Amino acid sequence: MIRSRRKNPTVMRAIYRTLDPSQRGPAADVFRLVHHTLVIAGIAAVILSTVPQIAEEHGWLLAAVFHLTLAFFAMEYVLRLYATPGAPWAHPGRPWRDRIQWALSFAGLVDVFSTWFMLLASVLPIEQNSAHLACIIWLFKFVPYSEGLSLLARVIDNARSALLSVLLSFFIVLLCAGTLGYLFEREVQPVVFGSIPASLWWAVVTLTTTGYGDAVPVTTLGRMLAGTVMIGGIAVFGLLAGILANGFAEEVRRRDLMRTWDLVTKVPFFNAVGAEVISEMTRLLRPREVQPGTTIMRRGEPGDCMYFVVSGEVEIRIQPKPLRLGAGAFFGEIALVTGEPRNATAVAAKFCVLLSLHLTDFRHLAARWPELTAAIKEEAERRLAQAATKKA
Amino acid sequence: MIRSRRKNPTVMRAIYRTLDPSQRGPAADVFRLVHHTLVIAGIAAVILSTVPQIAEEHGWLLAAVFHLTLAFFAMEYVLRLYATPGAPWAHPGRPWRDRIQWALSFAGLVDVFSTWFMLLASVLPIEQNSAHLACIIWLFKFVPYSEGLSLLARVIDNARSALLSVLLSFFIVLLCAGTLGYLFEREVQPVVFGSIPASLWWAVVTLTTTGYGDAVPVTTLGRMLAGTVMIGGIAVFGLLAGILANGFAEEVRRRDLMRTWDLVTKVPFFNAVGAEVISEMTRLLRPREVQPGTTIMRRGEPGDCMYFVVSGEVEIRIQPKPLRLGAGAFFGEIALVTGEPRNATAVAAKFCVLLSLHLTDFRHLAARWPELTAAIKEEAERRLAQAATKKA
Amino acid sequence: MIRSRRKNPTVMRAIYRTLDPSQRGPAADVFRLVHHTLVIAGIAAVILSTVPQIAEEHGWLLAAVFHLTLAFFAMEYVLRLYATPGAPWAHPGRPWRDRIQWALSFAGLVDVFSTWFMLLASVLPIEQNSAHLACIIWLFKFVPYSEGLSLLARVIDNARSALLSVLLSFFIVLLCAGTLGYLFEREVQPVVFGSIPASLWWAVVTLTTTGYGDAVPVTTLGRMLAGTVMIGGIAVFGLLAGILANGFAEEVRRRDLMRTWDLVTKVPFFNAVGAEVISEMTRLLRPREVQPGTTIMRRGEPGDCMYFVVSGEVEIRIQPKPLRLGAGAFFGEIALVTGEPRNATAVAAKFCVLLSLHLTDFRHLAARWPELTAAIKEEAERRLAQAATKKA
Amino acid sequence: MIRSRRKNPTVMRAIYRTLDPSQRGPAADVFRLVHHTLVIAGIAAVILSTVPQIAEEHGWLLAAVFHLTLAFFAMEYVLRLYATPGAPWAHPGRPWRDRIQWALSFAGLVDVFSTWFMLLASVLPIEQNSAHLACIIWLFKFVPYSEGLSLLARVIDNARSALLSVLLSFFIVLLCAGTLGYLFEREVQPVVFGSIPASLWWAVVTLTTTGYGDAVPVTTLGRMLAGTVMIGGIAVFGLLAGILANGFAEEVRRRDLMRTWDLVTKVPFFNAVGAEVISEMTRLLRPREVQPGTTIMRRGEPGDCMYFVVSGEVEIRIQPKPLRLGAGAFFGEIALVTGEPRNATAVAAKFCVLLSLHLTDFRHLAARWPELTAAIKEEAERRLAQAATKKA
Repeated sequence: MIRSRRKNPTVMRAIYRTLDPSQRGPAADVFRLVHHTLVIAGIAAVILSTVPQIAEEHGWLLAAVFHLTLAFFAMEYVLRLYATPGAPWAHPGRPWRDRIQWALSFAGLVDVFSTWFMLLASVLPIEQNSAHLACIIWLFKFVPYSEGLSLLARVIDNARSALLSVLLSFFIVLLCAGTLGYLFEREVQPVVFGSIPASLWWAVVTLTTTGYGDAVPVTTLGRMLAGTVMIGGIAVFGLLAGILANGFAEEVRRRDLMRTWDLVTKVPFFNAVGAEVISEMTRLLRPREVQPGTTIMRRGEPGDCMYFVVSGEVEIRIQPKPLRLGAGAFFGEIALVTGEPRNATAVAAKFCVLLSLHLTDFRHLAARWPELTAAIKEEAERRLAQAATKKA
Repeated sequence: MIRSRRKNPTVMRAIYRTLDPSQRGPAADVFRLVHHTLVIAGIAAVILSTVPQIAEEHGWLLAAVFHLTLAFFAMEYVLRLYATPGAPWAHPGRPWRDRIQWALSFAGLVDVFSTWFMLLASVLPIEQNSAHLACIIWLFKFVPYSEGLSLLARVIDNARSALLSVLLSFFIVLLCAGTLGYLFEREVQPVVFGSIPASLWWAVVTLTTTGYGDAVPVTTLGRMLAGTVMIGGIAVFGLLAGILANGFAEEVRRRDLMRTWDLVTKVPFFNAVGAEVISEMTRLLRPREVQPGTTIMRRGEPGDCMYFVVSGEVEIRIQPKPLRLGAGAFFGEIALVTGEPRNATAVAAKFCVLLSLHLTDFRHLAARWPELTAAIKEEAERRLAQAATKKA
Repeated sequence: MIRSRRKNPTVMRAIYRTLDPSQRGPAADVFRLVHHTLVIAGIAAVILSTVPQIAEEHGWLLAAVFHLTLAFFAMEYVLRLYATPGAPWAHPGRPWRDRIQWALSFAGLVDVFSTWFMLLASVLPIEQNSAHLACIIWLFKFVPYSEGLSLLARVIDNARSALLSVLLSFFIVLLCAGTLGYLFEREVQPVVFGSIPASLWWAVVTLTTTGYGDAVPVTTLGRMLAGTVMIGGIAVFGLLAGILANGFAEEVRRRDLMRTWDLVTKVPFFNAVGAEVISEMTRLLRPREVQPGTTIMRRGEPGDCMYFVVSGEVEIRIQPKPLRLGAGAFFGEIALVTGEPRNATAVAAKFCVLLSLHLTDFRHLAARWPELTAAIKEEAERRLAQAATKKA
Repeated sequence: MIRSRRKNPTVMRAIYRTLDPSQRGPAADVFRLVHHTLVIAGIAAVILSTVPQIAEEHGWLLAAVFHLTLAFFAMEYVLRLYATPGAPWAHPGRPWRDRIQWALSFAGLVDVFSTWFMLLASVLPIEQNSAHLACIIWLFKFVPYSEGLSLLARVIDNARSALLSVLLSFFIVLLCAGTLGYLFEREVQPVVFGSIPASLWWAVVTLTTTGYGDAVPVTTLGRMLAGTVMIGGIAVFGLLAGILANGFAEEVRRRDLMRTWDLVTKVPFFNAVGAEVISEMTRLLRPREVQPGTTIMRRGEPGDCMYFVVSGEVEIRIQPKPLRLGAGAFFGEIALVTGEPRNATAVAAKFCVLLSLHLTDFRHLAARWPELTAAIKEEAERRLAQAATKKA
């Protein structure tokens, strides 16, 4: 099955690229679509097959979808293993070393488990229903495709020590609450608070402010304890939330800065200015992707930002004849300079990538680098004069 | 009904302005009041009509309110359609093109649905009660009037990718929790945890720390899972909260900067200083609207900020005769310079817009731009000398 | 009763100061203690008197405490009214104008309601129990004493528009959820979801993730709606939390800056440096109050900050004889300069107010203003040399 | 037992270091491991012994573990007391003064309580089960070992006044809610809302959005109150969370800055540049500990940061022969300069401490201190030229 030593490395490279989540292109896009559809369909099939009514009526359909998905993933595994020597990090001339390395890596082991072992399980005489549940592991097949999840993983990794100390304090509060709850309530409610583990269940439900209501203190001391635990829970909540939120904001900011920088360097206007201005602009500009036909700005509206065109084409609907602006141009600056409403409507003619500069940041720039905004204002005045001439 | 081609575009423009949520003025204010009252009254009528007791007793009143509201909105729709060519973004000389464009836009379709279709529904022999519920769509009529909601929409749009990745991780955790919950509990609680969809209900109630208590794990493994899910829920909570809170704070800051800038440029005192100082001042000053008769500062209190008058009139109650300050003046700086309590009470004589500068920011400015605060201090000393002369 | 025109204004001023929450001093402290004790005792008495068992057994005691508190507050009201002309903001020579002004102010009306009306109520033949509940208004007597609460009020006032737009979106989501919940569940649960108001109750309990469990959706659509509402609730939560948390942090920062500035200007060392450095130092220094006998730093521990003495006296326990440092001195700088553990223990000899400078900020300062830290380092070297000489 | 006056102070110092949580080394590590294991085992034993089933079956095992732990802690106490004169803060020549000082300190009293008193309790004829519960105090034995918890304690201490004012507003809202809940519901639900203390229980469960469901308002007024209380609870939540999260982030940032500074000063490359650059670099660099064998960067991946080696050894897998980099070297800068994917894989050869510099920060530095990045770029070009030569 995996005999393919004689095949051309170009083929391997093409397959690798198609399967690589970080790649873009027609083949990779089609594969991504099929892959995601099958993950969702496969998991949905397993979930629905646990509902007796549906399992009875549509059992064969669910099984078909499940096995189709399984077969696809099994094939994907074989392809991945085969194409490993086409990876950019592969060692030229040692295809099998790379393959074994990948097969024994975490990703490889997860893949083999989620396909071959499951195929095996569906043949063996064990309970079908439970075996199939292992397919929940397919969910993790989304992980390499989601940039956000890898971001999240990095956030958790960076804040590891802070998170651990919050969890430690969570457990200390939990154990204290559980023990005290047991002491206060065990005589009145010998079933629900009959042991510390049982009382811990109450404590965790209370500390996270979930409050199922299956274990509720009734003594005065127990209720005072519960109130304290709830407030403590809010505090733990706040710490956890704060750590994650700050870390996430930081990582998102870094990622956005990297992306914006790449876009900024594509606009010739910015290359004329120094590196320090570019570094500052990168922080202020916001990338925006616009579908063809979208109205970017509308005549008569107040103007709160200007736009730089990174790629695509924008149509400025001015009289007597619309104007087309391509990559490198900018527009919308007139309203910022004059403070009046937009004097034209702008519509994306093709798929555009724009960088928008907000009015407040434009003013900030104008204060710090007057020469930069002077160039923009000059262009605005030139256009206004042009428009006045045309009308006249 | 909509025959009005011969009417003057000035009329259209006046009507457009009256209906435009972003406008201010007597006509627009009256329309806004009637509009908001009717939205609230109409929705209240529909809500109350679902209570059998009230529906029986006051049925005709509720129906009257509902139909009055409906009629008003139908009329509003006609007016909006008619007045569209009066919009600033309209194309001169092509009224019907603008009208059709608006009628087919999202706002236009929502409007037609929430009025005409409902009028139709109230005639047709379908169940009245349910048909009326569609009026919940009226709630969205508030949206164009609320600046905050459009801010919120922009925040969600900006943080789209971050929110999506948090939602994806939410769903991954949810599905894992649901599957494991099903595995751990299905034998002990075959009704509540009898299928994965049922178990997912438990998972979502737990992951959001809502905890209805209709599905509660009882096995040790199930309870450990529940504890983990709750903590996971807190983490998801924190991420979602952090993303939204940061984005909202950013947008509010931008909006406030824009507003403050507009006010700052109205005070002649600031125009004397350079653009960089204005840019810095805009960040430090806080706009404040004051109703006539409000005490702005009170003699004997410690002074923690000074005020610039953008518009309106302020009365400084000093002996022997109160002093009136108009637009462009400033007051309250003496306490900042001397560190002593306020030496006079200031009351708004008319509706005022003020800019307040906090003591800490005054000191910060004094350190960075000594010439700016020197001018303020000079004025303070002049006034103190004046007061001393008068007393003597 | 309130006949006191002939009394000396000095007496009024003294009484005013004793009753003024912002004052400090023996008389004001005693009054504060009595006032707070009675507020707590009075409210506790009313709360406990609603427990039938306690009311029966200790009814007379609770009534005594309640009436004592009431009498005290009635007397306080009379005193406040009498002493009003002693306020710093009063108009000299017009005592009754000031008194009437205060009596008709919000604080005055609350006070008269919470005392005289209640006294009246306890005489009239209405139900005692309910009348007494009005005493919950006494809680607000704490408000003028708590700086934090006035901070909170200012935060809410500043973020008013943002909070309102979040509340508006909360209500829109609530009404949509209530209406949809009614549509989905009314047939299966005609009692709990029998009308939109009933369904709104479920919606609010769900949207705030409280989840009492008295109304729980059972249909698939209803449960999907519930899941969405819970996530929406988390989002609303996050926005509300973020707005309040950011605003509070900002106000606390301002207040701390003001306090620290006042302390910084008391240390002669900082007066030698320019205003810009003071402005920067104010941001970096942290005030700390130390009770006599507290160990501030301990020999052998790693040193992470240095201290400036604003007031009080610190004993540095060095051999052969402890050293006493008074206001204006600094210590703990040696460990920062050498990077070695503390070479002496420092204990507060009297009640001290210190300003601490953290190691990271010390380094930051050293990079920006080398001359400032050079002076500190010089002192450190002088002391080290001194210590070396003494030992030798 | 504690007769050891003649023993050498060197022995005391060695024992002190072994027991000191802030020390590292083979002896201290072994002690830490045994200590932590026994705390966990001891507490687990007590918790499990409250479950009747487990207590019956494995009673003797649990008792053995419990008494073993107790004996260990008793011994630890004796050792700590004995070794006190070996502490860095001890007074030379006065061993007993130091011992008594420690024994009467908070830590000493907690230790004596958690060991000797418990030994006593297990001999006396009181109920075993309850006596053992005091062992929950052992949990606090983790506290000195957890840097995070001491951080948390400092955060709470710093934000004391803000936290107190939030708690005060929490209690004011709570009391108002409890009183109003009692007024609205007492007639309909005389058992659950029969007194204010009972109603307060409902209020606290609602205000923290826990929602057990044991007390639920049923009147319209009561439900409106509940809705308001829930929103108030979210607000309190947000304030508490925000205060703690901001404070924690601040403290973590300080701690990280201190650590990074220590690492930065170990890299000779940074010592060449001025103090201001180091201060800036400390903010930008992130420390990272890498286990031997970990892949730090992988050929073909996009490069988003460069690394400085503080300690350890890194193997750069380039052709024809891998290169080994030791402390002070840097790598990964080529991808940052060229913008191309990594041209080599780097693996940690030994345990490494690295400082990573992110691409966005590299660009920021390049803009502010061109000379710094010029040096890095020079090195990158030198290596690229070298690689080109080798290949040729």
